[in-house]
Amino acid sequence: MTIIKRDHEHFMKEALKLAVKAKEQGEVPVGALVVANNQIIAKAFNQTEVLRDSTAHAEMLAITAAFNHLGAKYIKDCTLYVTLEPCVMCGGAIYWSQLGTLVYGASDQQKGYSNLGKKVLHPRTKVVSGILAEDCKTIVDDFFREIRN
Amino acid sequence: MTIIKRDHEHFMKEALKLAVKAKEQGEVPVGALVVANNQIIAKAFNQTEVLRDSTAHAEMLAITAAFNHLGAKYIKDCTLYVTLEPCVMCGGAIYWSQLGTLVYGASDQQKGYSNLGKKVLHPRTKVVSGILAEDCKTIVDDFFREIRN
Repeated sequence: MTIIKRDHEHFMKEALKLAVKAKEQGEVPVGALVVANNQIIAKAFNQTEVLRDSTAHAEMLAITAAFNHLGAKYIKDCTLYVTLEPCVMCGGAIYWSQLGTLVYGASDQQKGYSNLGKKVLHPRTKVVSGILAEDCKTIVDDFFREIRN
Repeated sequence: MTIIKRDHEHFMKEALKLAVKAKEQGEVPVGALVVANNQIIAKAFNQTEVLRDSTAHAEMLAITAAFNHLGAKYIKDCTLYVTLEPCVMCGGAIYWSQLGTLVYGASDQQKGYSNLGKKVLHPRTKVVSGILAEDCKTIVDDFFREIRN
């Protein structure tokens, strides 16, 4: 049996599909998923509008779904893929989850956790950024441009 | 009709009762509640163990419950009472909620949001700290001392 080791771009493309779903539902188009052992165990997109809950970010929902899937309250051996750099709240959630690796697409210079320094995340969490960054940024920029017009 | 205006100590005592409930269930004893128009509209305590979800902090649960109660995704006219200073994740959630006033009991010098500066919260959120601070600190300290022994 050949095991195909999927790469960051593969999973980020899946996260982008979730961002598209968010956009179709009038949500800020951010998608997130959690991978364990090369398999997706949790998927989510922003649901702040439908849930009327300004904390229902894609990452929060995906992390909680991953906990539920694993029956664990830490996801040390998992990778979280998210199209946009997490905010401070989601960065804090990532801290508590003791996530193994965070992979994000576009940076968020206004609301991204990294504006407050590296202390937001757990020291053991590895960070990879810039995967399909242009696609991840464009979908958000287009969304806000359309809202304004 | 005489309207009794309840004060911070009144509501913090209620939050402490929730912290006691958390302790009875083996959870880190932190309680939180949301007040609108002098009435409690949401109550919660830490549920990280029972939910197997390290993001299930009292404040996160109380804020989401308040959104549900009001059918709104902002709680600008509300006050959140919490026995312990919120962490960075909860501070970020408070940011997104545009909370009117945050009242907390004991400071959390290790994990409190204020370690990362005032930027974590929304600039419009007023902060009151130190209400029944000794009681709020003692219940947490006792909990961790008992765990260690």
